[in-house]
Amino acid sequence: MPTASPDQLVHQLNWRYATKKFDPAKKIPADTWKALEQALVLTPSSYGLQPWQFLVITDQAMKEKLVPISWRQTQSADCSHFVVFTARRTLTETDVDAYVRRTAEVRSVAVDTLGKFKGMMMSQLVPPPTGFDIHQWASLQVYIALGNFMTAAAMVGVDTCPMEGIERKNYDEVLGLSSSPFATVVACAAGYRAADDKYATLPKVRFPAEVVVRHL
Amino acid sequence: MPTASPDQLVHQLNWRYATKKFDPAKKIPADTWKALEQALVLTPSSYGLQPWQFLVITDQAMKEKLVPISWRQTQSADCSHFVVFTARRTLTETDVDAYVRRTAEVRSVAVDTLGKFKGMMMSQLVPPPTGFDIHQWASLQVYIALGNFMTAAAMVGVDTCPMEGIERKNYDEVLGLSSSPFATVVACAAGYRAADDKYATLPKVRFPAEVVVRHL
Repeated sequence: MPTASPDQLVHQLNWRYATKKFDPAKKIPADTWKALEQALVLTPSSYGLQPWQFLVITDQAMKEKLVPISWRQTQSADCSHFVVFTARRTLTETDVDAYVRRTAEVRSVAVDTLGKFKGMMMSQLVPPPTGFDIHQWASLQVYIALGNFMTAAAMVGVDTCPMEGIERKNYDEVLGLSSSPFATVVACAAGYRAADDKYATLPKVRFPAEVVVRHL
Repeated sequence: MPTASPDQLVHQLNWRYATKKFDPAKKIPADTWKALEQALVLTPSSYGLQPWQFLVITDQAMKEKLVPISWRQTQSADCSHFVVFTARRTLTETDVDAYVRRTAEVRSVAVDTLGKFKGMMMSQLVPPPTGFDIHQWASLQVYIALGNFMTAAAMVGVDTCPMEGIERKNYDEVLGLSSSPFATVVACAAGYRAADDKYATLPKVRFPAEVVVRHL
């Protein structure tokens, strides 16, 4: 299968913008969504631990319930698929074991052969070193997923809007996460821009490459 | 310009893996690297503030200097381009002003017309609310850049290895960042896998989609 060309990459990333107004009539086709969901699943993470869960919301009533707890931004209601990125609140030996078992399963090896791998993760993360906040660490990993998701979507021509302006505790309550191992971190709307979203044509504001990139 | 197909996206993301052994003889062609650097520049961020600087290291001596402060991982020495992702330590009114001026410049409007925009950012971030750590917030944004970069690279057939196992304070020292507004957060090696990197063919370990994705 051919890779994308460098021009195609830059073209799609320039095409991308934080969509303010989605066309509520346009839904992401099933095969495209399946690929984007697969992109989420394939996101790399620290030790491969995947300390996250992605909530994909397409139910219209639920999407509308999120508007008042999203600084009244309407993207959740108007987009096709609304993704809430959640991160683990804590990390226990049970969680590490689940990952080790999954590794053994996927790679067809005995769990016992992964003792060193488990020990390495345990020694770094369970319990976490003083001053090391697991939820913060997991949140960083979730932002890899966010970056991956937005770029993946741009490459296949799907619009997105990352949303940090959300009331996380209220999200947790509405989404039934309050006593789950996962807490809301950030969200991202996905779908297709409305024809009259005036933000679509505004020039993208970035510092010049000379300012943000240094060569050594 | 055509978008990537959903299949192409998933194929490239499956092709991607955390490359342990790069082929030191294979360098990323200039036009491909230019596109990846542009991808970094185009990364979306909170308010568009881009609280980061990306250090691109191709100098062999410097690349080798990083090995002993990267848990002795050799990717920095062997890869083609080594990127150190740094984030702002603090955010001042001067920083916000620089962004507002850049916005005015790019969008051809008077700086005065952006007073409300500036006020919104100042009220949220300068000074930050109690318990809100600017460097942490900036680090989250940097992880968007990391996710974007790895996916962008995968799409154009460039291998990467994200590296959290680095001694950040020592990186700051070696890279001359100790008294700069930016501090090392994470790094990523980019280049091409060595033919004998045994990690290239190991099955990718991910939890099943049913475990990490919930539909509502």
